[in-house]
Amino acid sequence: MFKINYCNQCGGKTAFRIAEGEDRKRDVCHDCGFIQYLNPRIIVGTLPTYQGKVLLCRRAIEPRKGYWTLPAGFMECGETAADGARRETMEEAGAQLTDLHLYALYDVPMIDQFYMFYRAEMLSGDFSAGVESLEVELFALTDIPWGEMAFPTITKVLRQYIDDLPSGHFNLVEARIG
Amino acid sequence: MFKINYCNQCGGKTAFRIAEGEDRKRDVCHDCGFIQYLNPRIIVGTLPTYQGKVLLCRRAIEPRKGYWTLPAGFMECGETAADGARRETMEEAGAQLTDLHLYALYDVPMIDQFYMFYRAEMLSGDFSAGVESLEVELFALTDIPWGEMAFPTITKVLRQYIDDLPSGHFNLVEARIG
Repeated sequence: MFKINYCNQCGGKTAFRIAEGEDRKRDVCHDCGFIQYLNPRIIVGTLPTYQGKVLLCRRAIEPRKGYWTLPAGFMECGETAADGARRETMEEAGAQLTDLHLYALYDVPMIDQFYMFYRAEMLSGDFSAGVESLEVELFALTDIPWGEMAFPTITKVLRQYIDDLPSGHFNLVEARIG
Repeated sequence: MFKINYCNQCGGKTAFRIAEGEDRKRDVCHDCGFIQYLNPRIIVGTLPTYQGKVLLCRRAIEPRKGYWTLPAGFMECGETAADGARRETMEEAGAQLTDLHLYALYDVPMIDQFYMFYRAEMLSGDFSAGVESLEVELFALTDIPWGEMAFPTITKVLRQYIDDLPSGHFNLVEARIG
């Protein structure tokens, strides 16, 4: 995930080692013994649709600046996953959603991330680019810019949606990526 | 979640404040400006069954030492959620599982946790208490010690299982606790 050098409790130097009672290497403080655990983080996102079109955002920030994505971001403390997905959609795409349906769970263990995507209908055709988006646009499913997608998770959930659409059955999908 | 006092990158003092470009208070380093994000953590667990009985562990550690729980713990970096659930079941209950089926997702925003429970059949009747368990036992569903359960999430997923059992339909449940 990233390198830890100091204890966030006492400011002492840490070492990446197996502490007593632990079964794997972690960042352990030389001075106070505090273990700074790192755990996978949850990315919550949505697949917002309106009149058969899907809402995509073009990223204004790295990584993958300039590429298209669905509204998604790190789940925050104190919120539910669905609330986080709603919040990200408002922040990045200025769009309000009706019923959210959990649709895809993707493990991405190589980067310690766990993705949760919700399908949702937009409350209206209103949307606007937030500070993390260069532009936001409704795309017909035949016009999705597949060659300019930001992340494999985004491509995967959109392809799943297109596969499921004819049947109208959107069963929850679980997959590992990478 | 817990209090951060020092930057884990440079060892400088941190302050809980809104950094430039952020929309909420976070732990920001006075010296190098590094933001130490805290995000909800995923708890992965299983509801292991064998010949109609369910496997419970009596906790050997705080919190709720001496109370009964299902095998569950923090998802680790580098693993999938299902792998983590399998690992916790082996570590705490010494039990091997066959097919895992995702069964319950619980948001517990008050303590910044997100629970994922899998149903699973045990590969055999073998099990044994790991270091975090005082004892492990197979319980008939009529004998579950409801008054001695460790956490509300555990009670909830067990009650759901008992509700679903007669129909044989174990649809994924999503709920918020607290």
